[in-house]
Amino acid sequence: MLRAEFVMESEPLVPKLVDHEARRAEIVDTTLRIVARDGLAGATTRALAKELGVANGAVGHYFKNQDVLLAATYEEVFARTNARAGRAVDGRRGLDALLAKLREMLPMDSVTLDEARIVVCFWGRVTTDTRLRARLPEEHHAWTHQVRDLLVQAIDDGDLRTATDPMKLAELLVTTVHAMQVRAVTLPEETPTSVQQELVEQILTPWMRRPVALSSRWLASTERSKP
Amino acid sequence: MLRAEFVMESEPLVPKLVDHEARRAEIVDTTLRIVARDGLAGATTRALAKELGVANGAVGHYFKNQDVLLAATYEEVFARTNARAGRAVDGRRGLDALLAKLREMLPMDSVTLDEARIVVCFWGRVTTDTRLRARLPEEHHAWTHQVRDLLVQAIDDGDLRTATDPMKLAELLVTTVHAMQVRAVTLPEETPTSVQQELVEQILTPWMRRPVALSSRWLASTERSKP
Repeated sequence: MLRAEFVMESEPLVPKLVDHEARRAEIVDTTLRIVARDGLAGATTRALAKELGVANGAVGHYFKNQDVLLAATYEEVFARTNARAGRAVDGRRGLDALLAKLREMLPMDSVTLDEARIVVCFWGRVTTDTRLRARLPEEHHAWTHQVRDLLVQAIDDGDLRTATDPMKLAELLVTTVHAMQVRAVTLPEETPTSVQQELVEQILTPWMRRPVALSSRWLASTERSKP
Repeated sequence: MLRAEFVMESEPLVPKLVDHEARRAEIVDTTLRIVARDGLAGATTRALAKELGVANGAVGHYFKNQDVLLAATYEEVFARTNARAGRAVDGRRGLDALLAKLREMLPMDSVTLDEARIVVCFWGRVTTDTRLRARLPEEHHAWTHQVRDLLVQAIDDGDLRTATDPMKLAELLVTTVHAMQVRAVTLPEETPTSVQQELVEQILTPWMRRPVALSSRWLASTERSKP
């Protein structure tokens, strides 16, 4: 639809372009499913074509090569997480917004656990693929600054002590999300939701102004918007 | 040498078996170098044979297949880290021992940064390879308990407050090491040694009994033993 301005008035083109975007999205969606299930090694052109029920060469009409497809797929994970986290924060502020946001990033259910499997697979490839790595600093800064802003609100609300360094704490929280993603994938038995919550609480508790049980604040974040 | 008991008295076998172990170690060492440089996708039998200067089939005499070789390689990373961390702690206790140990695990120099690249690559494979995953809980528990013991000493020494929960703090520190490994690989520019130290200090500072600059305690850990 974004490309409507390039569409000539001869109407057959419109459905074709819409179809093109829809097809790309379908291919990315299927790639995400395969990576979550079989890892990056499983996301071959052949496996993808089979799962889509198309000929082996068909994917090439939509993505020039495997690298371009994987970059688009990695991008889609960010887009999905950010969209969910954005909705979760909507109408909340401070500590509650922070926990609601973390809830959408931490691998605590099937959606976020699949995302963890996917990003951990991609990290292995990021070590040698500069195209994949290029987008990461921007995402990292955006997440860190969003978390910092919520921590500043939590200080203003009197939930966190004024001695809290919101930027350093934000760095630690965002870093911990990545660590939980690694743990959930490599040590699934040792990383239930309760352990993830405890580790986040271990970070926040020393900065709480009153000795409140943080665990009760998580509850609000279970009222999640659907993915 | 471990297999000496199986060696018949006819002496030609002895050098052969020693050679076998030495060859296996050489293959694992070369695999580690390739993974650090080119990722797991680069560690093909062909690339390995080329780097070793042997025929393509030669590696198969020492490792039944690629999975067995990768499992042995992953094992070797743990062995090297543990050996270095063990030497670093030797003769130290409490907070100084903790920082010396973390120094050997955090990706702060070429040795530990290569290890980070290697383990991050392996994590992507761990998602779908139960053989690789099998050893991880044991390693995780061992590391967490070692760190906890050092935290208990730090409490006894009066460096950390008695209100510190050493087990939860140990979980958080070990988890943070993994997070730093991810960050150093995916966000190298944003993860210099100073940032890693700050994040560890952000975790420890609220539990310090006296307002001491932790940064000065790291210095002792720069007196490292050679890898």
